[in-house]
This record gives sequence, C-alpha cells and structure tokens, in this order.
Amino acid sequence: MINVSIIGTGNIAYHFSNVFLKHHNINLIEVCGRRKNIPSYFSSRVNYCDDVSKISKSDIYMICVSDDQIEIISNKIKASSKSLILHCSGSTDMKALSNYCNYGVLYPLQTFSVEKNINFKKIPIIIEGNSKDSLNKIENLASKLSENVLKASSKQRLAIHVSAVFANNFTNYMRVVADEILKSNDIDPEILNPLTFETSDKLKYLNSKEAQTGPALRKDINTLKKHLNLLKGSSYHKIYETISNEIKKINYEL
Amino acid sequence: MINVSIIGTGNIAYHFSNVFLKHHNINLIEVCGRRKNIPSYFSSRVNYCDDVSKISKSDIYMICVSDDQIEIISNKIKASSKSLILHCSGSTDMKALSNYCNYGVLYPLQTFSVEKNINFKKIPIIIEGNSKDSLNKIENLASKLSENVLKASSKQRLAIHVSAVFANNFTNYMRVVADEILKSNDIDPEILNPLTFETSDKLKYLNSKEAQTGPALRKDINTLKKHLNLLKGSSYHKIYETISNEIKKINYEL
Repeated sequence: MINVSIIGTGNIAYHFSNVFLKHHNINLIEVCGRRKNIPSYFSSRVNYCDDVSKISKSDIYMICVSDDQIEIISNKIKASSKSLILHCSGSTDMKALSNYCNYGVLYPLQTFSVEKNINFKKIPIIIEGNSKDSLNKIENLASKLSENVLKASSKQRLAIHVSAVFANNFTNYMRVVADEILKSNDIDPEILNPLTFETSDKLKYLNSKEAQTGPALRKDINTLKKHLNLLKGSSYHKIYETISNEIKKINYEL
Repeated sequence: MINVSIIGTGNIAYHFSNVFLKHHNINLIEVCGRRKNIPSYFSSRVNYCDDVSKISKSDIYMICVSDDQIEIISNKIKASSKSLILHCSGSTDMKALSNYCNYGVLYPLQTFSVEKNINFKKIPIIIEGNSKDSLNKIENLASKLSENVLKASSKQRLAIHVSAVFANNFTNYMRVVADEILKSNDIDPEILNPLTFETSDKLKYLNSKEAQTGPALRKDINTLKKHLNLLKGSSYHKIYETISNEIKKINYEL
C-alpha cells in the first residue's frame, strides 16, 4: 500500500484524488490547499488540511499547484528523508524540488476539467526521477494509474508540453474562433461537431500531414482571398493569414 | 428514382459516388473527369466518361471540381432546361451556375480523404437553390444522404466554410506542428492521440470557451517564455506567439 498526499485543489488535484480513491493499493492520506474548506467537487471521503506546513506524513507528496508556486510550496512540506516529492508539471524542471533527498516528476499528458470525467488508464504519464530508486518508485505509482508510462528528461518533457499546447490549447482555440464566426452569422456552432470529431478520428488512420486538407494546402488563392475578406477588421484575420502561410509550405516539405 | 451524375474524380466525388451507389432511390448515371481512366479507388460499378461535353442526360449534375474550375466546367454541360446543376463548394457563390435554369448548392460540411470511410448520415449538408422548386429538389436529395440538412445563403455558407477551415484545417495543422516538435525530440507523436481525442470529446460536454485551458489562458508568463525559448529560430515561434496573444484575451471577454 502506497500512502499519497496531494497539495493543490485544482483540476489535476481533483482528478488525481479520484483515481487514488478508486485504487486498492493506493491510500490517499490527505489533500492540502490554501482555502479554508476543500472545494465541493472533491469526494466527501477526502481528508483536508489548509496549511501545507502541517501536512500529515506520507510516502509520496504530489504537488499539483501552478508552475510558479511549485518551488515555494514544496519547500514548506516537512517531509522525512524517505519521502518522495513529485510535481506534475510539463514545463517545470525536476530540479525545482532539489531541496529534498528524493524527488521527481509525474506528468499526465492530458487536458483536465473538473466537469469532465476521464479514463486515467489511457493517459500517457511522463516520469523523471532524481535517482534510480526515486524513478523506480515513480514508475511503480505511475503504472498503477496508466498503461502508458514514458521516461523522459526535463528537456524532452518541455517539448512534450509545448506540443500538447499546440495539440490541445491551440486546436481548441481554433474551435473558439470558428464558433464565434458562426454565432456572428446566426448559425449554431454545434453544426461543426461532426467535423471536429472526424478531424481527430482521422488521426487513427492517417498521420497529421496526410490528414491535412483545405484551401491553403491546395494553394487555392481565390478562396483564401474570400476568407480573408470576410475576416477583415477582426483579429482572426492575422491568425488566418499566419497559419495559412505556414500550411502552404507543407507541400514542399513532403 | 433520381438520376444523378458527378463531375470530378477527387475526394468529394469519390465519397458522393459511394453514397449514391448504396442508396436505393438514387441512380448514379455517370462519373465524368478529365483523366482518360477513372481512378482505381472508385467502384468498378461506376460508368465513366472523360469528356464533360458528352456527359449523359441526368436529372441532377453534381459539380465536384476545384472552386476556380466550377464556372468553366459547368458551362460545358449540355443539360436540358429541366436538369438541376449543383456545386458542392463552401466558398463559391451559387451565381457561378446562373447560366442554367435550375441550379443550387449542396455543400457537405466535412473533411474528406479517399483513404477514410465516412458515415454520410451524420454530415451536415448546407443547401441553397435559385428557386423554390430547385431548393425543394435539392432538399429532397440532401435529406436522402443526411439527417442534418440546413438552408443557408451564399454569405452564410462562406462563413460556415471559414469556420470549418479553423475547426478542421487549422486544428489539424496544430497537430502537424506538435508532431514535428515531438519527432525532433525523439518522441513518438502517437503519445498525443489520447489528448487529441479528449480535446474533441470535451466539446460534447463543454462549449469551446469553457473547454479552453493552458498557459496562455492562465497568463502563466514563465511557461510561455520557456515555450517560446524552445521554439526560437523555428517558424512555429510566430504561430505560438500569435495564438497565445489571442487566447490571453479570452478571459476578459468571458
């Protein structure tokens, strides 16, 4: 049985608490946050503490706070020399935790919202440890959560995080723009759902370069002009132009 | 029974030919293209003609050629005054076909590749007709293909097409960039598949603004700096900066 505590009460802390509560070989000791009370979306079975300097003893402390708070918060934990301190950030160097004897990273490559349940088993988990012993312990924990565990350096993890920003945050933003264009033309954005689904489903059969279509790839100048004309005066004009210019380059590279 | 002919041998022509062949109340008369022989990915049950001026008589001619060829090709069809001439382009005004008595648009809002089968029933089809009678005929055909038929003006259709470029072409390009970043760091791009799936699945539960996450939305300046630093010198730097600056604005609007 592994004893684990979570520091933080945001989206990732919430999803970790749920997967830990469900697992027979993991014992969720405590969730710790700055707020006086734990947010209501957490399970009532969770013990809560509002002062990180008073956190209960645990085998593993998972720091699930914003990147710029990781180093500050971690240094308040009074952990024994046997404990393992982990953060779960994509872009923070493991060394942010180097005040401790045993430390590392357990970064789940997924987008988390409290409102949406997730099957942890399929989420790739990227791990890194300060020693062979730490890495073994992290791998042991990660493999209880997911079937897809990958060791990577802090630099590789940063590259994975940037790529995830493109693949998730930026793709989602493209849909935000699409929805706004439709709404301003009195069309229900839900009309795009089959297209959005197909766009991601296609990647099971084709790689992203093969799946690329559209007027920029075809260098269809007339259509590009019509689209830019429709977007004139909005901030979407620049985005359309920037991305289309990049897509035009794809053909040459293939 | 409706007699339909297709002009064109690309992705959309191919998918239309398949759905017409399967339908009991639609008779696919002919596919017509510039090549001497029909591409091998078409069914062997399809009649083929390589000269559009000699195309057989049909109730409906579906023009599935590139946007800049629609007007040129359509004027070569020797159609009777009772025939209906349609194009299936998102960004071409219906009037490109105004040389004919009966004309209109049947635009399927989807991304098509020959390599990937598609369930036509779920694809939104946007229609427009030059008269009530034409529109009725187009609606009749469209509703045989899909459960989701929408009437829209040429201007609205152009807005739908621009939004589809953002929702499909640009989101897919974001994945192209992500894959390139991963490959140059010795990581298999398949690691992103669960994230890409979740990004589109989320939109069943949340709207795109609610689903937005990431360092730009959080205004996490340190992470943005680390990411831009990693992308320095590549053309992805400008895309990252442009889109992140736009995402930063979302909070104020909500």
